[in-house]
Amino acid sequence: MHVLVIGAAGMIGRKLVERLAGSPSVLGDAIERLTLADAIMPAVPEALQSVTTALTVDLADAGTAPKLIAGRPDIIFHLAAIVSGEAEADFDKGYAVNLDGTRALFEAIRREGQREAYRPRVLFASSIAVFGAPFPDIIGADFFATPLTSYGTQKAIAELLLADYSRRGIFDGVGIRLPTICIRPGTPNKAASGFFSNILREPLAGKEAVLPVSEDVRHWFASPRAAVGFFIHAATMDTNLIGPRRNLTMPGLSATVGEEIEALRRVAGDKAASLIRREPDPVIAGIVAGWPSNFDASRAEKLGFRAESTFDEIIRIHIEDELAGGLP
Amino acid sequence: MHVLVIGAAGMIGRKLVERLAGSPSVLGDAIERLTLADAIMPAVPEALQSVTTALTVDLADAGTAPKLIAGRPDIIFHLAAIVSGEAEADFDKGYAVNLDGTRALFEAIRREGQREAYRPRVLFASSIAVFGAPFPDIIGADFFATPLTSYGTQKAIAELLLADYSRRGIFDGVGIRLPTICIRPGTPNKAASGFFSNILREPLAGKEAVLPVSEDVRHWFASPRAAVGFFIHAATMDTNLIGPRRNLTMPGLSATVGEEIEALRRVAGDKAASLIRREPDPVIAGIVAGWPSNFDASRAEKLGFRAESTFDEIIRIHIEDELAGGLP
Repeated sequence: MHVLVIGAAGMIGRKLVERLAGSPSVLGDAIERLTLADAIMPAVPEALQSVTTALTVDLADAGTAPKLIAGRPDIIFHLAAIVSGEAEADFDKGYAVNLDGTRALFEAIRREGQREAYRPRVLFASSIAVFGAPFPDIIGADFFATPLTSYGTQKAIAELLLADYSRRGIFDGVGIRLPTICIRPGTPNKAASGFFSNILREPLAGKEAVLPVSEDVRHWFASPRAAVGFFIHAATMDTNLIGPRRNLTMPGLSATVGEEIEALRRVAGDKAASLIRREPDPVIAGIVAGWPSNFDASRAEKLGFRAESTFDEIIRIHIEDELAGGLP
Repeated sequence: MHVLVIGAAGMIGRKLVERLAGSPSVLGDAIERLTLADAIMPAVPEALQSVTTALTVDLADAGTAPKLIAGRPDIIFHLAAIVSGEAEADFDKGYAVNLDGTRALFEAIRREGQREAYRPRVLFASSIAVFGAPFPDIIGADFFATPLTSYGTQKAIAELLLADYSRRGIFDGVGIRLPTICIRPGTPNKAASGFFSNILREPLAGKEAVLPVSEDVRHWFASPRAAVGFFIHAATMDTNLIGPRRNLTMPGLSATVGEEIEALRRVAGDKAASLIRREPDPVIAGIVAGWPSNFDASRAEKLGFRAESTFDEIIRIHIEDELAGGLP
C-alpha cells in the first residue's frame, strides 16, 4: 500500500512516521511506498528508507495537491496546518493553507477519481478549536461549531468538506478532533497552551517551569502516543460504522492544572513539583478561560478510539518515549 | 444609503425589493442608491427607478464581487444561491456559486476595506439545510451543523465565514437561517418540498393539488412576508446584541400537513380542502423524513425576529399578498 503523510515534519507527523516504521503491519498491508510531505524537509525513517520519498511542499501552491495525489496513495494522513496563532495573525496565509490547501487536496482526489476509479482513506487532523465559548460543562457529540479564531473556522470548514466529499463517495474520510497534546516534547514555546506541557516536561528534566494560571484551570488532554493511535485506528477501522457524521471528538482526559501537578508529584517526587514557579499572567489566564474543559467522547470511544485516563499515565508515556525510560 | 440586493430576481429578493420600494424609510435612512443583481435581469421597482441599477451577473465569475462592492453599498442582502437539488446534481456549480461566490463577496469587502475604511452590514440567506438527521424533537440553538447535502454544506461553510469575517470587523454580518417558505407563490414545481405550498396555493385558486405524503408529516414554516421581515429586521437591528454567534435560526411555525389542511378548511371552506388529492409517493416521503420538524428559535425571538404562529395567518397573508385580498 501507498501511504501519504502531509505535515510529516510536525510533532505528530514525526511520531506517526516512527510508528509506521517501527510496526510495518500496523496499517494491515505492508507499506510498499511512503510519501512524506511538509513545508520543511521531513526526516526519512531508516526502516522504510528504500520505499520513502520526502518532499518539501507548500500546500497553498496550486500544483502541490495534484502532485501528491498523482501517486494515488491508499491512505492519506493530512496533518499539515498553519497553527492557531499564526492563522490569526496572518489572515491570508491561514486561509490559503488551512482552507484552500485542504480543499485543493480533496479536489485533487476527486479529479483523480474522475480519471480512474479511486477512493482513498483520508484522515484529517481537526481540533477542539472548532468549538467556541460559552460551553456547557461537558461538550456533547452534537454541540455546534462556533469557532472564535480563524484557525478554528478553517478547521470547521474542512470538517464540513470532509463530510460532504465522504458522503458523495469521493474519499473515505475521518476527521480527528484532537485534544490538547500533552506532554509536547521539545523546548518551552510561547503558545498560550504551552504551560500545560512545560510544567511537566521541564521539571521531569530537572528544570524550572513557569505556571501562568491558577491550579483550578481545567482542560482536555491526550498524549502524543494517543494522538498517533487515533490516526492509526482511523486508518484501519471499519468506517461503515461511523455514518455521515465523519468528524469525531477524540477521547481525552479532563484534568485541572492542580491534578497535573499532583500526578507529577506522584511519579517524580516533591522535588520535581517544587520546580514549578507560579507567575500569574492575566493575558494567558484570559485566553485559557475561553477554552473548553471537558467533552463527552463516548461516540469515538464506542468506535474504538482510546486515550489516557490519568495524568500519571500521560507522564509515564513521556518518560518512556522521550526520556529513554528514566528520570535524570 | 446604498443598498445592494444579490439574488434580487428570486422569490424573496423580489418581495424584499417591493418592500423597500413601498416603505422608503424601512431601513432608517432614505435609499439614495439601489443595486439589484441576479443571474437573470431583476425587475426595477417604479418607486425607486431613478436610483436603481439592475445587473445580470454570475457570482462565480472572479470579477463580479469586486464590481458589486466597488460602489461601497452600506447594506448588502446576499440571497443568491444555486438551490438544493441543482447543487446536489452539479457539484462544481454548487460549490462555485454557493461557496466560492459567497467567499469572493466577503473577500471583496475585505479588500475594499483595506483600500479605505469600510464595514457594511451583510445579511446572508442561510437555510435549515445546514442541519442533518437524526434530530432531537426540537432542534436547539446549539445543535450542530451536519448537513446531508452539498447545498447544506455550502450554506454551513458560508455561515462559518460570515461569523469569522464579522468577528474580525471586516463587515457586520447576520446569517438568517430560513424556515421552509410557505405559501410559495407561482406554479407547482418539482422540488421535494413543493407540496407543502401546492396543497394550499392551488386549492385557494380553485385548482386540484397532489399530496404525496401522509398528514402527520411535520415541518417548519414561515411566510414569504415573514422572510422579508427577517431581512429588514436584521438590516436595522443593533447587532451588538448578537455576540459572536452570528447565524440565527429564524422563528417559524412547526405544523403537520394535517394542520395545514385544517387551516385551509377554516379559511377557505370544505370545498377548497376537498381539492387535495392523496397520491402517496414513497420517494418524496423518504426525502421529507430526513427533514427537521421543529426548532427552538427563542434566541432569534429575543432579538426581535417574528414569524407567524398559526397556519390560518400564513394562508391569510397569501390571500392578501398574492390574491388581491380575495378568494376566487
